[in-house]
Amino acid sequence: MTLFGNLESGNVHKVQMLLHRLEIPFRRVDVSQPKGEPTRAEYLKINPIGKVPSLMLEDGDIITESGAILFYLAQGSKLWPGDRRAQAEVLRWMFFEQYSHEPALAVMRYLILFAEGPQRNNERLEELKPRAERALGAMEHQLKMWKFIAAETITIADYALYPYTAWAHEAGVDLENYATIRRWLLQIESESRFLPLMQDGAAETIGFAEHFAQKRAGVAAD
Amino acid sequence: MTLFGNLESGNVHKVQMLLHRLEIPFRRVDVSQPKGEPTRAEYLKINPIGKVPSLMLEDGDIITESGAILFYLAQGSKLWPGDRRAQAEVLRWMFFEQYSHEPALAVMRYLILFAEGPQRNNERLEELKPRAERALGAMEHQLKMWKFIAAETITIADYALYPYTAWAHEAGVDLENYATIRRWLLQIESESRFLPLMQDGAAETIGFAEHFAQKRAGVAAD
Repeated sequence: MTLFGNLESGNVHKVQMLLHRLEIPFRRVDVSQPKGEPTRAEYLKINPIGKVPSLMLEDGDIITESGAILFYLAQGSKLWPGDRRAQAEVLRWMFFEQYSHEPALAVMRYLILFAEGPQRNNERLEELKPRAERALGAMEHQLKMWKFIAAETITIADYALYPYTAWAHEAGVDLENYATIRRWLLQIESESRFLPLMQDGAAETIGFAEHFAQKRAGVAAD
Repeated sequence: MTLFGNLESGNVHKVQMLLHRLEIPFRRVDVSQPKGEPTRAEYLKINPIGKVPSLMLEDGDIITESGAILFYLAQGSKLWPGDRRAQAEVLRWMFFEQYSHEPALAVMRYLILFAEGPQRNNERLEELKPRAERALGAMEHQLKMWKFIAAETITIADYALYPYTAWAHEAGVDLENYATIRRWLLQIESESRFLPLMQDGAAETIGFAEHFAQKRAGVAAD
């Protein structure tokens, strides 16, 4: 399998974490957001919405959207429950992550680490901070009842929520007041085959330009 | 079943559309966003993130996040495919909807119809318009290949994408240039048991204050 995406993206890291956990070997093509690579013509053929990650399967078929990729990979493992109510609970937290959690925490982190124009950013950061806190509050509430976010055991919903929660400090949000979330982060980190943030889990990594040049050369040679 | 939410919300309408299609009778408790009801203490007990819809099942259990609710309701129907690759494709478009489509189109519609402070809104609308067009472009691209968004037959991904796409004009986006999307909207509208936007599909509808007063009275009488 080939994973398209960069290490700085939490959405990419979720997929890496799961591939690593399930011991599925993969190569990674680096697609850099700061360089604008996700919206380059070559990549838009892989994912027309111009976002990372994308996963190319052995047969060349492509899945996009981190949540759909996690769902696909986890089938048949303990990370996806058997009962439809429990499955809906896992998806509930995965949709929550993409709809309420990521658009606050990941955008704040992006503004702080990568964006330009500080004046505008401060205004936007102030607007987003209460949303981030509301999302973290909902997680804290849930994790006081259950050991993991969607069940008593780890599921793909925990993988979906881990990266941007663990990166909260880079988004300007202190987890000091979220003791239960901090307990949950440590639990995930103590799971077998945990892959830390920014660590490359790929068997082989190749640059964007190099990959697409090889592809063109391959086509020309056919 | 009891659906919590208002008719003006596309996320609520998706769930209504599916309940109606599957001939599942339900009551609806109106939760008005303009009145701030989703973040009132009574409702936060139902959904701590303070968003609509929420679905209360017969046993009192609650599912939130429209995508998770659609998944739960569609199990065992033709609207959820049997094969894991096809299932991932359905979820792909549902995550796309919540992550790329709804945050542009639904926010633009909200700003135009419900928000205050026109100056600020215009700036935000300009920022969001290219994102809405990129999302619609990805749909148009996909619908040129397939009859429905995730398969050759209708799935819950089509229900997820219908409301805010059909409301694009209310978000200030003309579908003139999206002939394939317009064809797809008409296909969905010609499906059996289609529920039009703003139409109440509930067997009974009750106001927010009335519902929670009854609940308090019920508890007091116990």
